[in-house]
Amino acid sequence: MRQEHDFIGIKTIPPDAYWGVHTARAVENFPITGQTVAQMPELIRAFAFVKKAAAHANLQLGAINETQANAISKACDDLVAGQLHEQFVVDVIQGGAGTSTNMNANEVIANRALEYLGLHKGRYDVIHPNDHVNASQSTNDTYPTAVKMATYFGIQTLLAALAELRGAFEAKAREFANILKIGRTQLQDAVPMTLGQEFAAFAAMLADDERRLRESAYLMCEINMGGTAIGTGINAPVGYVDVVTPKLAELSGVPVKAAANLIAATSDTGAFVDISGVLKRIAAKLSKISNDLRLLSSGPQAGVADIKLPPRQAGSSIMPGKVNPVIPEVMNQVCFEVIGNDVAITMACEAGQLQLNAFEPLVAWALHKSLHHLASACQTLQVNCVEGIVANQNLLDERIAESVTLVTALNPLIGYEKAAAIAKAAIATGKPIAQVAEDLGIMSQAEMQKLLVAERLTQAGAITSDK
Amino acid sequence: MRQEHDFIGIKTIPPDAYWGVHTARAVENFPITGQTVAQMPELIRAFAFVKKAAAHANLQLGAINETQANAISKACDDLVAGQLHEQFVVDVIQGGAGTSTNMNANEVIANRALEYLGLHKGRYDVIHPNDHVNASQSTNDTYPTAVKMATYFGIQTLLAALAELRGAFEAKAREFANILKIGRTQLQDAVPMTLGQEFAAFAAMLADDERRLRESAYLMCEINMGGTAIGTGINAPVGYVDVVTPKLAELSGVPVKAAANLIAATSDTGAFVDISGVLKRIAAKLSKISNDLRLLSSGPQAGVADIKLPPRQAGSSIMPGKVNPVIPEVMNQVCFEVIGNDVAITMACEAGQLQLNAFEPLVAWALHKSLHHLASACQTLQVNCVEGIVANQNLLDERIAESVTLVTALNPLIGYEKAAAIAKAAIATGKPIAQVAEDLGIMSQAEMQKLLVAERLTQAGAITSDK
Amino acid sequence: MRQEHDFIGIKTIPPDAYWGVHTARAVENFPITGQTVAQMPELIRAFAFVKKAAAHANLQLGAINETQANAISKACDDLVAGQLHEQFVVDVIQGGAGTSTNMNANEVIANRALEYLGLHKGRYDVIHPNDHVNASQSTNDTYPTAVKMATYFGIQTLLAALAELRGAFEAKAREFANILKIGRTQLQDAVPMTLGQEFAAFAAMLADDERRLRESAYLMCEINMGGTAIGTGINAPVGYVDVVTPKLAELSGVPVKAAANLIAATSDTGAFVDISGVLKRIAAKLSKISNDLRLLSSGPQAGVADIKLPPRQAGSSIMPGKVNPVIPEVMNQVCFEVIGNDVAITMACEAGQLQLNAFEPLVAWALHKSLHHLASACQTLQVNCVEGIVANQNLLDERIAESVTLVTALNPLIGYEKAAAIAKAAIATGKPIAQVAEDLGIMSQAEMQKLLVAERLTQAGAITSDK
Amino acid sequence: MRQEHDFIGIKTIPPDAYWGVHTARAVENFPITGQTVAQMPELIRAFAFVKKAAAHANLQLGAINETQANAISKACDDLVAGQLHEQFVVDVIQGGAGTSTNMNANEVIANRALEYLGLHKGRYDVIHPNDHVNASQSTNDTYPTAVKMATYFGIQTLLAALAELRGAFEAKAREFANILKIGRTQLQDAVPMTLGQEFAAFAAMLADDERRLRESAYLMCEINMGGTAIGTGINAPVGYVDVVTPKLAELSGVPVKAAANLIAATSDTGAFVDISGVLKRIAAKLSKISNDLRLLSSGPQAGVADIKLPPRQAGSSIMPGKVNPVIPEVMNQVCFEVIGNDVAITMACEAGQLQLNAFEPLVAWALHKSLHHLASACQTLQVNCVEGIVANQNLLDERIAESVTLVTALNPLIGYEKAAAIAKAAIATGKPIAQVAEDLGIMSQAEMQKLLVAERLTQAGAITSDK
Repeated sequence: MRQEHDFIGIKTIPPDAYWGVHTARAVENFPITGQTVAQMPELIRAFAFVKKAAAHANLQLGAINETQANAISKACDDLVAGQLHEQFVVDVIQGGAGTSTNMNANEVIANRALEYLGLHKGRYDVIHPNDHVNASQSTNDTYPTAVKMATYFGIQTLLAALAELRGAFEAKAREFANILKIGRTQLQDAVPMTLGQEFAAFAAMLADDERRLRESAYLMCEINMGGTAIGTGINAPVGYVDVVTPKLAELSGVPVKAAANLIAATSDTGAFVDISGVLKRIAAKLSKISNDLRLLSSGPQAGVADIKLPPRQAGSSIMPGKVNPVIPEVMNQVCFEVIGNDVAITMACEAGQLQLNAFEPLVAWALHKSLHHLASACQTLQVNCVEGIVANQNLLDERIAESVTLVTALNPLIGYEKAAAIAKAAIATGKPIAQVAEDLGIMSQAEMQKLLVAERLTQAGAITSDK
Repeated sequence: MRQEHDFIGIKTIPPDAYWGVHTARAVENFPITGQTVAQMPELIRAFAFVKKAAAHANLQLGAINETQANAISKACDDLVAGQLHEQFVVDVIQGGAGTSTNMNANEVIANRALEYLGLHKGRYDVIHPNDHVNASQSTNDTYPTAVKMATYFGIQTLLAALAELRGAFEAKAREFANILKIGRTQLQDAVPMTLGQEFAAFAAMLADDERRLRESAYLMCEINMGGTAIGTGINAPVGYVDVVTPKLAELSGVPVKAAANLIAATSDTGAFVDISGVLKRIAAKLSKISNDLRLLSSGPQAGVADIKLPPRQAGSSIMPGKVNPVIPEVMNQVCFEVIGNDVAITMACEAGQLQLNAFEPLVAWALHKSLHHLASACQTLQVNCVEGIVANQNLLDERIAESVTLVTALNPLIGYEKAAAIAKAAIATGKPIAQVAEDLGIMSQAEMQKLLVAERLTQAGAITSDK
Repeated sequence: MRQEHDFIGIKTIPPDAYWGVHTARAVENFPITGQTVAQMPELIRAFAFVKKAAAHANLQLGAINETQANAISKACDDLVAGQLHEQFVVDVIQGGAGTSTNMNANEVIANRALEYLGLHKGRYDVIHPNDHVNASQSTNDTYPTAVKMATYFGIQTLLAALAELRGAFEAKAREFANILKIGRTQLQDAVPMTLGQEFAAFAAMLADDERRLRESAYLMCEINMGGTAIGTGINAPVGYVDVVTPKLAELSGVPVKAAANLIAATSDTGAFVDISGVLKRIAAKLSKISNDLRLLSSGPQAGVADIKLPPRQAGSSIMPGKVNPVIPEVMNQVCFEVIGNDVAITMACEAGQLQLNAFEPLVAWALHKSLHHLASACQTLQVNCVEGIVANQNLLDERIAESVTLVTALNPLIGYEKAAAIAKAAIATGKPIAQVAEDLGIMSQAEMQKLLVAERLTQAGAITSDK
Repeated sequence: MRQEHDFIGIKTIPPDAYWGVHTARAVENFPITGQTVAQMPELIRAFAFVKKAAAHANLQLGAINETQANAISKACDDLVAGQLHEQFVVDVIQGGAGTSTNMNANEVIANRALEYLGLHKGRYDVIHPNDHVNASQSTNDTYPTAVKMATYFGIQTLLAALAELRGAFEAKAREFANILKIGRTQLQDAVPMTLGQEFAAFAAMLADDERRLRESAYLMCEINMGGTAIGTGINAPVGYVDVVTPKLAELSGVPVKAAANLIAATSDTGAFVDISGVLKRIAAKLSKISNDLRLLSSGPQAGVADIKLPPRQAGSSIMPGKVNPVIPEVMNQVCFEVIGNDVAITMACEAGQLQLNAFEPLVAWALHKSLHHLASACQTLQVNCVEGIVANQNLLDERIAESVTLVTALNPLIGYEKAAAIAKAAIATGKPIAQVAEDLGIMSQAEMQKLLVAERLTQAGAITSDK
């Protein structure tokens, strides 16, 4: 066991721990979820990039020496490579604006760097977590920067999953391109379309979502490195921002740039609310699509039954042979979670006071969950559901054949009121609309059958008047 | 009284009503809020532009004749000019995906157009609400289009109000440029800054919000005119989309363009969730700024008291002379309302099914409130609060003079641990940090006073080490 | 015009205005929604009860004289009777913790009382808004008390509407008691039930909601009259709480009682979050029921179509004869609004600081909307929808006859796995389950038909094994 | 390895796995969070009670035999004792309305029971997960029942933590009973109170929360055991409900009783929305209290500084000696999470369709987190913060001595307007109010000092007029 101290007192640290006194206190203070920062590998990687970029700038500007800089850089490389993540033992929900995560990172990096120098853990006179690893930095610039970068990484993961899912819908759209069906508005039968058009619309919705998420990712690239404690840059050398920022972009591949006003950027968490809002938009759409898939596949005998989802597991512990739409159902739940997370994020961001927002750890954790749960749910929806969907073509054909709503297409010729009279009588009597129209003296059956070719009614210009 | 009928039956309509049977039924069906669509003049104007553009396209493509088109256009011009808005009598919260608002518009325009032709109201054989005013249209393309345009108009109003408010903060930032104060993180004293920097950060946050809102406004410009009932374009003439869309842009000044996939666009309300998310971001920030103004002006004797807000009204019915920060408080409440609206909008959008979202009327109303209440609150915050803020300079000067946190700047010279020892002892004993440093043998009082010039500590590079 | 002053300065007041200088300033300060407190008659009535009870207690305890007390009481009676409500001109969303509404009430009552004494408006030397109407009071005890009472009134309105709606479901449950149908879980066909059972379940859900709302109403009855400014009771005579509280209960019929800790009660808005949570529960259920009604009535040809809702209006401006479930749709939207309001209320309550919550006006307004919009939506759902629902009996009968899911009832005899084999084969081949069972050698068709009598399967104990 | 099959096909199961084919499929289908049901020990215990009570009833009513019942009971006892929890490997967020968790439980219990009979895992001919462990049951009654019971257990945990925290506030209230301070409303100085009154109010708020949570716990006790698939009781023996329900109460100690309408109870998740609303109320209050603690301890030099929180960790990686209110900050974040969870729960409950709610797994998980994170945060707030709070008595004394707001107490004698004049002049000039009053000729300094004894102003009746 080794002893470490801070200005509060002394703590005994296990010998194999790379973390130190600050981490130890945080573990005692925040026994909340049982989940640790180790669950957020992208945040750890982002921190490693930040610390390495800072070490580079500090060396260049004379704030640390070359021995220190090299050892710190190697330690950061290990974190980027996925090593020592288990050393991030502070709870994901923590007080202190991320200080404990930053301290945890500083300590792990310092002790790893000391190892590279052949020194014992705790030799902070040589590499000090605060004076050297954290040189020219504060939690208040490194933590928001790392959270943004981690979110940026997560966005890429989600974008890839969305694109795969969209591809599955596009494939189905092509497969179903010639299958006619009755569209529905407000759950009531509407005019004809193809099942392919319906699936193409799902794909188009996701394409819009992807476009919006991609363009919004820049919100995560405006960082405040160099602002230090409150954005004024105290304790950073002159020129530090201009060195550290491009270096960080180079190391991480994230196109970060310095925010225009570092004081505003230190406390301003608007970008997190905003990106969470975009995720919420995506969640609302994925939930809508899942609702539609569940509805379209309802049945098999007493439901809508336009399509069938692939069976994935026994649906019931009591009803034999029952198959349920469990994959869209799990997507729905993830979407509800994301929408709930958005409220938590919004409140955390609103609650920031004066020169800092103390509640970013919750924001980071909630964004992490929203991004990764959505991505996972997209993947299972794609592979375990969408790719195996089949059309109930016979039923769809029957419904087109007997549909009353085709009468809509006659509006330009006979007007809305006569068309309504036909529709009303057809529903009431169960007779085909062509026969009703003839009975009402509006047009002959033959004439109507010539006009109302369902295939043509799935696009503009099928029937026109001559005004 | 005149009689009108639909396929359900006959209704008696007051003779002076421009609305007809469909509107009358909707008024009976939706007695919810007592607020009518007349409260949303931008939506009515948007509908007028839509109907006029459609009349133009319908004339050009042969769907209505010139007499009809001209009369309809004149009626629309009246609505744009603010006339007949009281004829929009359906409740703002209504079932039917906006059908009742569209029907209300069709009927008012038809009857106004008939007046221009010298005919009685109700002569629908000449100009019919559905066959002519609504020709080549459905609620399902006109309503989303009009709601988007109305939202676009509201965004411009909010942008203007935000810019004015930002201007007020910028003016204060200049006024307070040389007033030093102690910054605060997590409500605890942090390092020095100027009051001007603090107000410039408020302005910078709003500038970011404005930029994001401005760039997001395009979401309201992707419309689905010509999609008609479900996006397939049934009953629209070939080429209609390409005529009506640019015409609508020309008439309204809104840079609308046709969505890439009209079927997706008919049911996809993601853009509303998204824009509401941007408004929520702005609300979170405005609420944060209001919180800060209330906190900074707390006191006058037992609070933070960095600044004074202008007195606007007696603060208490019982405590004489009390002045409260009522203007930021009203902003907070509007922001909470906007955040609540966002949840309602999200749920409404998530709940859309298959080829349409039936719940857009709530979305339209909630967005209307969010936009206009925010704009109004910005204006009162600007005029009745920010412009009259004064600094409590004497108190701020005293605090800078006695502040312990200036010791932070010594980190690069003496290290974090020694600096912490100074800070801890200074707080415990109440002695000035310079004296404590001398007592602890770290540096002389004179040396420290030379180093710790507060003005210099509000930027990077004040004190550097020589590593 | 008359002139009034406060400690800020002088304002000119229109001669016919019962309100005075404090109200005038508030109108200038809060031009937010255009909706005024006059829209909340229950809040005005509650304030009248509060002020009358206070006048009674003040007289008894010597704080005002008999002339003052009598005139104030008469003025309050007028407000209870619905007079002068248009004098409440402050915006529903206002800063100041309700001070402006309280001031508005004090001024209107003072000037009305002066009229009863034959004096001009503004003769505050005789009856002063603060010294006499507001004697022994503060906004901080009267406003929360009045808001709670107004909410209590609104709860009664909602309870009545819920009971009526429940009655309509119960009537339908009786009407449909013998109509068999296939139940559905996860939108997939499940085991048989009666349509009456389904409607009885709707009624039972509402009964639970009513019970919970009724029992939770007590939350609105714990008041803080006599706490005055911060709950310590400053400026109230000794014994005031014990006089004013029962008097208020007597006058209003609301069973109010003094909170146990008046300081806690002054700032504690937990009861509002709680009652809003109960309203949210009700909203979630009413929305679920509306979703079910829309789903069950989907069709008429290509949907679930178990039932038909009464046609209330033409459903489409383009699709002739289309009828949509517009009444449940408006209920859905009201429910989404209520759920959004709950978030706004929660944020407003969370944001209260130290001895007061400044954001209660938003809470009051949001609760008002939630309660009254829900009540109105219940009424239209009852009268314009539920009461006119009819069953699609032929279709339901057909589905029972051919249903595969009846095989579930055989589990106790043949086990889950054999039953699953039957179900799977029946769905795959389209053959009746009795025939499949015989083909698989599990039991004869006759045997199965004897066992699977659908009527008996809607309850426990239909088929049992002999283990 | 052993092989198991369901009606979809065959799966290979690891030999040491107590779970079987249904669980294996679920693990493949729901790779969402990486957190498994093993994280919810209370849910597993609740399931064990449910299955044991069902075995008891099944034995009594002849649905299973004694050998089966005994072995199942023993297996359940193991789960109650905390064994085999690692066998619950399905993701906490899962499709299928809890079917996978129920199947997981059925399989683990069946295989454990088989072990007790000396048989190999998978000998389902002897004890079958569905036919015997799940006899007379469905996911649709066991899962909601178990989730309610697990929530009930969690409520007890939270109640205990709240009571401890309240005790800490009560102790501080006694300790601070005689320390005078200035109360604050709307962050502006108000009238005097004691610091003890302030802390007693915190305790009183929590006492209200506890009372409400305790009385609302009954919502978790209305269960639907015996309803089976859709609440009609299909496949349960006659009399089953009356045997299983009291047995379950006896085994678990939870006072469960059968819901009045089992069909309603099967799909009705209103009780979850409701209990989550109560948790949200508690969160709003705990967040408010945490906000107050952070605000009251702000400083140490440039803040409110009424109190000091115990230092728990170094507050900053850059600012030496800084101590931040990290414990209240973590509570704030947990509260925001709970409020977000409430939205997710509400959406999940609203989305239930027809005879079941498919989204209860998310509800269960979100309630689990809300309850346990709140309880943990209460504990750290109590031990690591509240118990160590000290008053800043000197500063409080100074502020009382110079406070202008004491003038409020003179209203009954001199009226609101004269008192306001004194206050305004005192603030403007900085002179003591006694001197100002004398200067204005309102009363002598001696007279005022005799009246305005701060101690007396913290209660009613300090100064009264003689009207």
